[in-house]
Amino acid sequence: MADHRDTGLTLDPKYDAAGLVTAVVVDPLGNPLMVAHMNDAALRLTIDSGEAHFWSRSRGRLWKKGETSGNVMRVIDLRIDCDQDAIWVVAEPAGPACHTGATSCFFRRIDGDRLVPVE
Amino acid sequence: MADHRDTGLTLDPKYDAAGLVTAVVVDPLGNPLMVAHMNDAALRLTIDSGEAHFWSRSRGRLWKKGETSGNVMRVIDLRIDCDQDAIWVVAEPAGPACHTGATSCFFRRIDGDRLVPVE
Repeated sequence: MADHRDTGLTLDPKYDAAGLVTAVVVDPLGNPLMVAHMNDAALRLTIDSGEAHFWSRSRGRLWKKGETSGNVMRVIDLRIDCDQDAIWVVAEPAGPACHTGATSCFFRRIDGDRLVPVE
Repeated sequence: MADHRDTGLTLDPKYDAAGLVTAVVVDPLGNPLMVAHMNDAALRLTIDSGEAHFWSRSRGRLWKKGETSGNVMRVIDLRIDCDQDAIWVVAEPAGPACHTGATSCFFRRIDGDRLVPVE
């Protein structure tokens, strides 16, 4: 099953049918911030600018995180997984990552069928 | 845009058209291990057994991580994001997470158009 994507040293993202890869963002301590998607343009802008860009599926457009809120994410490290369909973004956030105002989108723990706030 | 999923305390995953949510797995120190997918059965088994289960898109079947390799992932913490379409799994891995044998699937850093090994 391994191919050049799994072991090579060339960036060759495996975009899905919608042209997207998954993007996971954590803070410099490894705390989860958010999960979103990038298309080719968003990944390119993220690499070139050092600030996290995404593709908004709900709005159907390119989106620089913090473009309205000011809560930009300065990229510290950028990795890609074995089959190159997921990007790992370590970033310093200028403010809350979540649209709810929470520091992280992952502000609830799963406990059976219930959710428990962690902040 | 906020609905009960964003702020409520009921587990109500927003599965995509294929019946899947994104599952991100990190080790107890917050180091990235892998990104995969869960369907309802995989999430339920993960919650109930305390071991990470996924839906394999390539094999089209439920998959307990480590079922053949022995490298099971014991779940320490399980979180869900604001819109409930991504699961954050903190797990203690019994061995390498990646099918390449690497500790983590994210063993390459993106540097422009090149990838640089991080292990």
